[in-house]
This record gives sequence, C-alpha cells and structure tokens, in this order.
Amino acid sequence: MWAIRRPCHAHYITRELAVILVSTRNPLNIGAAARAVANFGFSDFRLVDPYDVAFREAVSAVGGAHVLKNARVFATVADAVSDCSLVLGTTAGQHRVPQQTVERLESGIATARSHAGRVAILFGSEKFGLSNEDISFCHGLIRIATSPETPSMNLGQAVAVCLYELVREGAPEVSAAMPLRAMPAITGSDEEQITRMLIEVLQKSGYTNRITSVSTEQKVRRWIRRLRIGSRDAALLLGILRQILWKFDKSA
Amino acid sequence: MWAIRRPCHAHYITRELAVILVSTRNPLNIGAAARAVANFGFSDFRLVDPYDVAFREAVSAVGGAHVLKNARVFATVADAVSDCSLVLGTTAGQHRVPQQTVERLESGIATARSHAGRVAILFGSEKFGLSNEDISFCHGLIRIATSPETPSMNLGQAVAVCLYELVREGAPEVSAAMPLRAMPAITGSDEEQITRMLIEVLQKSGYTNRITSVSTEQKVRRWIRRLRIGSRDAALLLGILRQILWKFDKSA
Repeated sequence: MWAIRRPCHAHYITRELAVILVSTRNPLNIGAAARAVANFGFSDFRLVDPYDVAFREAVSAVGGAHVLKNARVFATVADAVSDCSLVLGTTAGQHRVPQQTVERLESGIATARSHAGRVAILFGSEKFGLSNEDISFCHGLIRIATSPETPSMNLGQAVAVCLYELVREGAPEVSAAMPLRAMPAITGSDEEQITRMLIEVLQKSGYTNRITSVSTEQKVRRWIRRLRIGSRDAALLLGILRQILWKFDKSA
Repeated sequence: MWAIRRPCHAHYITRELAVILVSTRNPLNIGAAARAVANFGFSDFRLVDPYDVAFREAVSAVGGAHVLKNARVFATVADAVSDCSLVLGTTAGQHRVPQQTVERLESGIATARSHAGRVAILFGSEKFGLSNEDISFCHGLIRIATSPETPSMNLGQAVAVCLYELVREGAPEVSAAMPLRAMPAITGSDEEQITRMLIEVLQKSGYTNRITSVSTEQKVRRWIRRLRIGSRDAALLLGILRQILWKFDKSA
C-alpha cells in the first residue's frame, strides 16, 4: 500500500506515485495538473519533453507551486519511468491500441493501490494522447469512462479525476456514515410542547374550527414527529410560535 | 434512478442533474466545467450571475460546445434551483459554514444517486466559493477530500471530479440508498414560497427586526431546507402560514 490514510483526516502520505505528463503543449495544463497533484497530497511530478521549457515561469499554479518547482524534466519516457515498477498509460479510448487491454479507471487504480512498488501514471499530449511508442512502456492502459459523444477530457481535469480515484474513500466506508442530520433529535416531550403551541396558533388564527379540530390536532402531531426536529431547530421553532401567539394576544 | 447505464458502454442517460456555477469570474472555467458536463454525459448546465456575460463567445470548450450553447443564465440562486428538489453545495471546507454539516463527496453523491427528483450541484466563485446566502438554498454541503495543505481545487477540475463520482462504477448504488424521507420531496420554488411566507409571518409578528432580518432570513431559509418537507406537508404548512397572515392582516 502506497497510500496511507491518517485517521480523522483526509490527508494522504503518498510516497510512491509519479504523475508523468508526456509532450504537453500548454503550460496552463501543466499548471492545472500540478495543482491537482498538490490537491490530492501527491508530490512526484514529472514531465517528458514538454513543448514549453519555460513552463515554471509561464504558469502560476495556484496551490501547486511547490509541486511545479520540484517537477523533474526527462528527455524520454524510458528515463521518466526508469524507477517505476508499474506504469499505467491513460487513453480516451479513441485510437486503436495495439495489443493492449484498456481497463476502466476504477479497476486500473485498484491494481495500482495493491502494487508494492512505485507506480507511474502517464498522460499524453492534449492533441494526440500517448503515442504507440509511449504506450509500449506501459503495463496497462486505463480510461476514464466518459460519454462516447465527448470522450476526450481536458488534461488537467483527467489528472484530477485519476488522482481522486486513487485517494477516494472505499465504498464500504462511504455507506457507513450518512450524517445529513447530525443534530441530536429532541425528546417526545419537546415535540409535544411544539405540537401544543402550534395547535394554539392554529386555533387563535382561525385555521382550526370546532368541527375539524381533533383530526387537525392529530395531523399536526404526526407532522411534528415526522419532521424529526433537532434540538437547535426546536428552540428556533418555539421562539417563532411564542412570538406569533404574543402578536395574536396583543391584537386581540 | 436517474442514471441509466447502457450495457457494454460507459454512457449515461442523465435526465435529472443540473450543474450550477454561481458568480464565476473566468470564462475559461465556465468552458472547462461545460466540457466536464459533456464528458460525463450530462447536459443541464446553469449559470447564476456570471461575471462575463459574453462567456459563450469567449470560450471554446473543446467538446463541451453544445453544453455551453444550451447553458441557461439566471439572476439568482433561487431562480436557478427552483425546479430542483435536492440542492448540494460544494465547499473546500475552509470557511466556517454555519449550521450545516459538510459531508465527503462520496457520501453526498450516494444520497444524490438515490434521490428521486432533480438534483442540483452548486459551485461558487473561484475566489470566494459559495456565500452564506447561496448556502442557505442548499440541503447539504459536500467537499472533495483534498490535502489540508492545498485544499482548494480549480473550478473545472472540481466539477470533473464531482461528476466522475456520480457516474463512477462500483459506488454504492441504490443498495446504499438512504431516502431521508419517503414522501416525494418538494422543489426549490416550493421551499422558497414557504420560506418567504414564513419570513413575512416573522416580520409581521415582530420576531424579526430591521437589524437582524438578513441573518434571520438566511437562518429560516437553511432551516426550511434542512426539514426536507414532503409535498403533502408543504400544502399543510402553506395553509397554516396563509391563515396566520390573514389573521395578522385582519387584526392590523
């Protein structure tokens, strides 16, 4: 495992992943890729034969400056991957790839996660992707499952998605916690206080008449329970109801 | 299920997701976001108060042109989310968010996947993110678990990662469904109607004064969203509020 998760934190110590851009044309894309590398807690950033050798000055990668500053430039893919024991190439899956299976990102990254040595992910140029020569250095090819109508992703966005998949929380952990409602729920007596006060408001406003009052009371009671009001919300709601009652009594 | 997967293909028919950018400054980011929307097979793209109204001409979103062309521009967040019944705001988790739980992307999207109505994901401006006012329209907040040292992502990259998580294979599908409320949820415009009517009640009752009214409005708006009111309850609540207002007016 090369990605170690610290408890309580979304911080990853990632020693053994290299992000490698091959023949990138646009310095802005190099900057965007560097930023994604920094965003997901990685640092090993390599460039093979970039078109603009002044990329360090040309870009201001917000938040990715340290990654960019420490980027290493290589003349060939062979040099760039020389210390890596698993090399994954990325492809939009458009051009024919000879004698290579293309996996979905999800399964390719699963392989990478369980790999014991240094892993490299290769991204080709904006216009042509990886060449067959580049691909010949890869142990596997991965593709992000994009729409067939618009398969080709922006380089910086593709890097971000690949790295996100690497550090993403596993499915079992995800389903465990669903705290859309973290606030402690109130007790039955609090609910009843709100219910009674709301019923009083309904009566004083004329919403409830003698004929319908019993069924309305039950409706209100069920409704207040169904809302699962949190403790902070209960105080807010009681304050509102108290104010409305005060206003009614004042006007009476 | 709003994302239907065709066999053998990574193509998604996604009818009910809206990507909404709020107060975006840079047309390039609008283009990048539009491209990600197209890449992952979505199409409903909305802009609230973009800084550059000439964004359609200003950008050449490779592959995202049709998405950009059909983008809808709204003056306010309220208008943009009016037909959505689940609104998720994105945050880098840097600024304090009052009374809102921030979930990881993984679990937030699991909720979105199991939601029966139209879902909106809101992205704030590059510099400031979503405002507290914007957030008051959200039912939940999600964040991509980035490194604490470089938490803030590029807008286009953040959109790509969120949409990837939506269409990703192996994420908890309906199995992990946590329908917060079995009753069909109401849309943003219904919630806003309740919010406005309740605010009127608060003003007329004297609960809100001029000094606190803005923060109270936001509090009320957040609270109404948090309640996840069902369609039947909405009618009940609107009836109650209408009656209270009638009573106030009669006594005035």
